[in-house]
Amino acid sequence: MIKPRDELGTATTDSAQKILLLGSGELGKEIAIEAQRLGVEVIAVDRYANAPAMQVAHRSYVGNMRDADFLFSVIEREKPDAIIPEIEAINLDALFELEKDGYFVVPNARATWIAMHRERTRETLAKEAKVPTSRYAYATTLDELYEACERIGYPCHTKAIMSSSGKGSYFVKGPEDVPKAWEEAKKKARGSADKIIVEEHIDFDVEMTELAVRHYDENGEIVTTFPKPVGHYQIDGDYHSSWQPAEISEKAEREVYRIAKRITDVLGGLGLFGVEMFVKGDKVWANEVSPRPHDTGMVTLASHPTGFSEFGLHLRAVLGLPIPGEWVEEYRLFPILTPAATHVIKADVSGYSPRFRGLARAMSVPNSTIRLFGKPEAYPGRRLGVALAWDRDIGEAKRRAEMVAHMVELRTRSSEWHSQDYEKAGHLCGF
Amino acid sequence: MIKPRDELGTATTDSAQKILLLGSGELGKEIAIEAQRLGVEVIAVDRYANAPAMQVAHRSYVGNMRDADFLFSVIEREKPDAIIPEIEAINLDALFELEKDGYFVVPNARATWIAMHRERTRETLAKEAKVPTSRYAYATTLDELYEACERIGYPCHTKAIMSSSGKGSYFVKGPEDVPKAWEEAKKKARGSADKIIVEEHIDFDVEMTELAVRHYDENGEIVTTFPKPVGHYQIDGDYHSSWQPAEISEKAEREVYRIAKRITDVLGGLGLFGVEMFVKGDKVWANEVSPRPHDTGMVTLASHPTGFSEFGLHLRAVLGLPIPGEWVEEYRLFPILTPAATHVIKADVSGYSPRFRGLARAMSVPNSTIRLFGKPEAYPGRRLGVALAWDRDIGEAKRRAEMVAHMVELRTRSSEWHSQDYEKAGHLCGF
Repeated sequence: MIKPRDELGTATTDSAQKILLLGSGELGKEIAIEAQRLGVEVIAVDRYANAPAMQVAHRSYVGNMRDADFLFSVIEREKPDAIIPEIEAINLDALFELEKDGYFVVPNARATWIAMHRERTRETLAKEAKVPTSRYAYATTLDELYEACERIGYPCHTKAIMSSSGKGSYFVKGPEDVPKAWEEAKKKARGSADKIIVEEHIDFDVEMTELAVRHYDENGEIVTTFPKPVGHYQIDGDYHSSWQPAEISEKAEREVYRIAKRITDVLGGLGLFGVEMFVKGDKVWANEVSPRPHDTGMVTLASHPTGFSEFGLHLRAVLGLPIPGEWVEEYRLFPILTPAATHVIKADVSGYSPRFRGLARAMSVPNSTIRLFGKPEAYPGRRLGVALAWDRDIGEAKRRAEMVAHMVELRTRSSEWHSQDYEKAGHLCGF
Repeated sequence: MIKPRDELGTATTDSAQKILLLGSGELGKEIAIEAQRLGVEVIAVDRYANAPAMQVAHRSYVGNMRDADFLFSVIEREKPDAIIPEIEAINLDALFELEKDGYFVVPNARATWIAMHRERTRETLAKEAKVPTSRYAYATTLDELYEACERIGYPCHTKAIMSSSGKGSYFVKGPEDVPKAWEEAKKKARGSADKIIVEEHIDFDVEMTELAVRHYDENGEIVTTFPKPVGHYQIDGDYHSSWQPAEISEKAEREVYRIAKRITDVLGGLGLFGVEMFVKGDKVWANEVSPRPHDTGMVTLASHPTGFSEFGLHLRAVLGLPIPGEWVEEYRLFPILTPAATHVIKADVSGYSPRFRGLARAMSVPNSTIRLFGKPEAYPGRRLGVALAWDRDIGEAKRRAEMVAHMVELRTRSSEWHSQDYEKAGHLCGF
């Protein structure tokens, strides 16, 4: 792991620090921008050319990140100070080996392995961190799946063991949904897909992410700093809108910090973690953890001060730099500058060379802006941008983010213009 | 000039919009980042490799921007939607010719020409915009300089006609300083340096910049939006610290907007202008204008919401995109999110490969951060970074920015570590 840092050099010179991004999407792009703003050199890696983070990196490499040889060939050439996995489709054995060779894999190879694997995550949360989670059971055949769903009770959720957040999951309302859930898990699973997990459905008030960050303080001690909880909702298992702060009770908020602390202590290393939780009244359940910046945390681009978005916090942590915080009782908190919200801008068509219109209206809405990620290809459900909005009133921020996102129409070379009206079902504000 | 825009494509594809930066320093770098965040393609040009904006651009070109052939060879290859001059050392004839050929030179070639030329600026402010300025006179010989200083009265300022802000200027306390002022103007002048301008010394309360931005509104009409005035002070003719809002009276603030409106109306085009002014009580004098983002406006990285720094405002304007604003009486204002301040981090040594230390302490100061520009070479007086701070209390923000900047020590390959203590004279807070 990296040591506490007091010094930085300059990118493109012999004194440069280097970060290497494994996965170069919109989250990596913002990490790259934060690095550039500290004069840190950025190497971006992904499976396709002109991925978002590559466009703001010093250099980039295109290849298959499941291939250990490709990873070694890039990393041993570049010798980065930190290797930052942004996605989960990475050769895990290579990460463990690189760590053994002295490279700093963020936050560490084991945490990346745990987070990739739903069973491992569940066991780590319940048995190592000993935090409240929903009940769960496993199945390897269709018959076992029926049985496990019975045992957990309907409605329940089924998930592939190896999956990234939301992929391969199914909401099982009753026995009639079990075969579909089986198909879904088999289809979306990555790697060892022979096991399916069945999880209790929590009838939560708020689904949220705690963006806890483990980092060195000024004295070189590892501390954990807690931004305000981020509320969010999903459509079809994918994040759709997020906001900060989440509307939860003070008691629930303290419980969120307690749970996030226990989980991140178990995972260890340095960096920001997205700890997904369910909240109902004062009660909190841990659900998932991503050992890296989280989709829903894009809201911190608007809610946190400049340089301290979840991407800036992550970058400071992985470089061994400090992060200012405020001790409130036993927790070190990071305050927001303004309540804010995000709403995704998604493609519902396929094709190259995406174009966006309706911007004259969308970009005239006060207290809001948009980001377009620069992805050269669209496909249905792919996130191409995000609307950000801020307001003293969190409800107003949500309303504006949703409104702005839905003002944007998109097309590709081969498609007609499409509004995003198709997916307004299940929205908060209903523009 | 560019038309009102409702549509954006995607960088690296055939639907891309392109901006081309002439000059790729720290201001261009932030423009490039804003462009990247809208999926706009960025081409960076400067006289040296690895200039700050090049590191976040899609492509870059190194060459002499005073050479018309170099400019044409790059621009006719790239065919950018907007050509954004960041500095003044650019071949003006080429800019005029490019404009005639249908390229959009930001804000327009004439405004760039006026701003490069101190005499032209003075005449434009006083006679075309008809706004209050200090008194002034010209001299072409040492004898005439003595005479002009007598006429304007001591103390006064002398400046080379062709100069960028602060360069080649001298504060003349009495007749004994006139020969030194003569030498300074001759030395630093660029282009036709046979004329020197003598300017009345205004005993101001606050020196400030109004970052007025001319842009299309939602309906395709050109409007001017006014961020809050930015206060600043200089050391040796170079910006040292800035803050927003400037502490000026309401009456002076309205006068600032009136003056900035008159000047930017005369200059025309689209984009953000830094209009430098002096304020004493309710009285305001126009001093200089830069037809582009201004050094002192880096404070908007902290004070404005995400996407709306002076760089974000400039980018929207030059692409023909709208900017939300609030009409207050006859002016369209852009509000701050928080009071904030900047303080420069400057080299006092020469050499390659700058390194910075003291960061564990400097980056632990709450409500502050630093930016390091990534310049591969240092020389005395060169700005290598900036400290940003924010606070409800503007005095506290200034204090923190100054404190953080002075915690950072620097060295190059060939130098020892240097604190920045050497230049604390004349500071506001005196850390």
